[in-house]
Amino acid sequence: MFTSKYTNVIDLTDYGTEWWLSLVKLASDIYDDPDKYAHAAQGKIMATLFYEPSTRTQMSFQTAMLKLGGTIIGFDNPATSSVAKGENLKDTTKIVSSYSDILVMRHPEEGAAKAAALTADCPIINAGDGSHLHPSQTLLDMLTLYREKGRLEDLTIGLCGDLLNGRTVHSMCKALCGFKGIHFVLISAPELGMPDYIKDMLDAAHCSYTEESSLENAIGSLDMLYMTRVQKERFSSEEEYLRLKDVYTLDPAKLAKGKKDLIVMHPLPRVDEITMDVDEDPRAMYFKQAHYGVFARMALILTVLNDPMKPNALLKGETADMQCRNPKCITQKEKYLPRSFTGKFAECEYCSCRNA
Amino acid sequence: MFTSKYTNVIDLTDYGTEWWLSLVKLASDIYDDPDKYAHAAQGKIMATLFYEPSTRTQMSFQTAMLKLGGTIIGFDNPATSSVAKGENLKDTTKIVSSYSDILVMRHPEEGAAKAAALTADCPIINAGDGSHLHPSQTLLDMLTLYREKGRLEDLTIGLCGDLLNGRTVHSMCKALCGFKGIHFVLISAPELGMPDYIKDMLDAAHCSYTEESSLENAIGSLDMLYMTRVQKERFSSEEEYLRLKDVYTLDPAKLAKGKKDLIVMHPLPRVDEITMDVDEDPRAMYFKQAHYGVFARMALILTVLNDPMKPNALLKGETADMQCRNPKCITQKEKYLPRSFTGKFAECEYCSCRNA
Amino acid sequence: MFTSKYTNVIDLTDYGTEWWLSLVKLASDIYDDPDKYAHAAQGKIMATLFYEPSTRTQMSFQTAMLKLGGTIIGFDNPATSSVAKGENLKDTTKIVSSYSDILVMRHPEEGAAKAAALTADCPIINAGDGSHLHPSQTLLDMLTLYREKGRLEDLTIGLCGDLLNGRTVHSMCKALCGFKGIHFVLISAPELGMPDYIKDMLDAAHCSYTEESSLENAIGSLDMLYMTRVQKERFSSEEEYLRLKDVYTLDPAKLAKGKKDLIVMHPLPRVDEITMDVDEDPRAMYFKQAHYGVFARMALILTVLNDPMKPNALLKGETADMQCRNPKCITQKEKYLPRSFTGKFAECEYCSCRNA
Repeated sequence: MFTSKYTNVIDLTDYGTEWWLSLVKLASDIYDDPDKYAHAAQGKIMATLFYEPSTRTQMSFQTAMLKLGGTIIGFDNPATSSVAKGENLKDTTKIVSSYSDILVMRHPEEGAAKAAALTADCPIINAGDGSHLHPSQTLLDMLTLYREKGRLEDLTIGLCGDLLNGRTVHSMCKALCGFKGIHFVLISAPELGMPDYIKDMLDAAHCSYTEESSLENAIGSLDMLYMTRVQKERFSSEEEYLRLKDVYTLDPAKLAKGKKDLIVMHPLPRVDEITMDVDEDPRAMYFKQAHYGVFARMALILTVLNDPMKPNALLKGETADMQCRNPKCITQKEKYLPRSFTGKFAECEYCSCRNA
Repeated sequence: MFTSKYTNVIDLTDYGTEWWLSLVKLASDIYDDPDKYAHAAQGKIMATLFYEPSTRTQMSFQTAMLKLGGTIIGFDNPATSSVAKGENLKDTTKIVSSYSDILVMRHPEEGAAKAAALTADCPIINAGDGSHLHPSQTLLDMLTLYREKGRLEDLTIGLCGDLLNGRTVHSMCKALCGFKGIHFVLISAPELGMPDYIKDMLDAAHCSYTEESSLENAIGSLDMLYMTRVQKERFSSEEEYLRLKDVYTLDPAKLAKGKKDLIVMHPLPRVDEITMDVDEDPRAMYFKQAHYGVFARMALILTVLNDPMKPNALLKGETADMQCRNPKCITQKEKYLPRSFTGKFAECEYCSCRNA
Repeated sequence: MFTSKYTNVIDLTDYGTEWWLSLVKLASDIYDDPDKYAHAAQGKIMATLFYEPSTRTQMSFQTAMLKLGGTIIGFDNPATSSVAKGENLKDTTKIVSSYSDILVMRHPEEGAAKAAALTADCPIINAGDGSHLHPSQTLLDMLTLYREKGRLEDLTIGLCGDLLNGRTVHSMCKALCGFKGIHFVLISAPELGMPDYIKDMLDAAHCSYTEESSLENAIGSLDMLYMTRVQKERFSSEEEYLRLKDVYTLDPAKLAKGKKDLIVMHPLPRVDEITMDVDEDPRAMYFKQAHYGVFARMALILTVLNDPMKPNALLKGETADMQCRNPKCITQKEKYLPRSFTGKFAECEYCSCRNA
């Protein structure tokens, strides 16, 4: 077992629902009274190591740190960053973590943030490891619900678009299924439906859900509609894509069938799954959601900086000699990493891939 | 009509001469006593969104904000910026303006800053939209004159180089023609002469000017000489370029004919229109001019942050269904923008192109 | 003779051993009590102009400035920086030095920092000019020795790897040969041995050294082992490289023969000249060495900012009309620079190349 003495935030499941709820409440308090926190991170340095560009996420974290009175270093582009090119992940993150008080990391490979946390000398926040995990996105989604609906329970939540591949909607299910009275309406084309393991998880949590193929039919029952992008290349054919695209596009006509107090969310960037004439509707909450993101990240940074150090189990399983079969797993390139797998499915502890 | 509740600075003509003069005076006061302003923007965040690189302008704005005690976020390179690539201008600027208190924007397309201001949630400063407008450059030019000549009136001003395409010299005419006793000497090859619409504007403002083809002949009468770059590709032939290049190059021999209290300005970067042995002459003011730029931008930032919100008319005309014919107009790519044209020439309100 | 009124740090030899020792002691004091210095550079701006990427060095300097309460501007990538592309070095550094209080510069050409210092309006710190000089690296190496061994004298120091081309190890010899009781063990393949001019310098300083071809044999006598990278392309053949690579690779087996209080240093990044299983050994000091780098640079910045201005002789020789023959010398591209050579070898004062 590998533990870290820092409060790393790699995955939603690192901490219980209570911990996340306390962060939502802290974020909400910061939103209401930002001046109280304007010097809370004074003298602290945050490094943002973005091994792939994600300008908005990086700026959101940077803004959060600056609003707490802290300062920032980092890079945003592997092509111009010598450390990103010529050096293994351990050495780079080991060194940068000795410069900074908190390290926010984005990486194209799955499990990269956990790999860095094994040896880093400061807490790590995962700002996206491939299409694997992105816990601060979920936190801001929860904050938006909490602020705009006033609660995180007794809500009918529509998830629409690519439910098969959508990291964001999977995390939403994980984060909310622990609250009482949550009902999910899963709205997608059959080929992009919610994976079984997420539905199993909802069942296990006694969280109800229904599946729908029509946004137009489903929208009337919803308290919140979470839209996601549908990528052309996910469909079997161009015709299929063109036929289904409009069905899962939110426009004023469909929105007209929604409740007065519906809120529409989207992780952004959108392409055309929400038409721009929806923006003026007061139920369009996606820009405000991005704004809430700054406060969610302020709460995250503050908590990670100030929490008493607790042993944070990074690798729980037995170290094994096996290679994970996921080609995007961080252990493919970073050969020195100890391999670790858990459970009957031999789930890789970096990328969550099932190897058995 | 579209108005913004923020004090945006898109164009010189957004505000009257008095407003700009008050900024020059504020900038001059900051220059004399910077300590008084060292915390004036404390707790404020400025985003610099540079959709094309302009390192010096970006660093000048960043320095200005830091000297006011504020902080900075932003990007400088569309190639490495995910928002610049995959997202429409509205969504990016809408979100970033919710992170920051002021947004400084450079964009290769004409009218981009105005387009952003339509929906942004903070004031926008235009730091160059293509070769269209760059108001802070003009402000720093005015500050340099004010500090180094002690006045903005009763001046003989030489404008030399490419007067046909030079944004900077056009703006200089617009900014100074309202002051009394200004006489312009327009020094250029015939094919690069000042456009008629600028000369019409000078006439309308009862501002006198003469045209000269020889810098050597003209220099003796000047209080200020503004040099600009002459690009090879503007000429009909290589021979023509080589013949005329030297005529419009400032060297010690030509400068020897200038007055003792002449000042030489240049927007920089120079190529070879001012030889490097001119740099040591105390009349060479272009480096100090760049230095003044920081203080001009401090005044601009402070004013935009602190001015009481006033309705700022962004689009004054009737929204029309017509497409502007300028291929560099921001409305070509950002199709959702409301089109608006004014006057008998159907001038596009984004890029100033005449469509009739 | 060209002098600057600023305390520039271009080369180790700019200042005497006493000056550097005072910086080591200041850095050590900052390390012990960083809070005392947390506002020492408040209100000051540092520009980092990195004409070639060197992410770690840039972040180390940035962290240093932020920990002193100062702020930072700069660029890190010539490809996206308009000033780096279209403008001569003098104009860029002249202007940026008028924005900032201190300018840290990395440049691929030798002598670039000195060239900038000739005309800059603030002190320059050389953060690497090609493979020529990098004085802050040496300062951090000295700080590591001082902190970890408790002294800078009476030490047996092993230098291992590419001693022919290694800037870092050459600087180490220059910096330490002035201290008493230093003995160097030069460990390398014959084709990568220490150049004669360094050995001459050691002799002149009455500093003893021995040459060894086996790391395994040499390690037992050392107080400090400085490892450097051996590049494949330095060898006569692939076979030769493969044969010798392991000889100069530090692994646990070789380290087992080292003293208990040996420390192992490396300028980083490493490739594979130190195996990753050495990292856990308490004698592995290279990560802590990088951490000390921040404090070394804090001392450097503070001293440069606060030292009373003293005339700093940048060019001591006679200005000559000759062109330096080093193709990487900054004078090759920046033609306006005054040429200057000193001594019987006509050493170029920019790049140290001997022209006679």
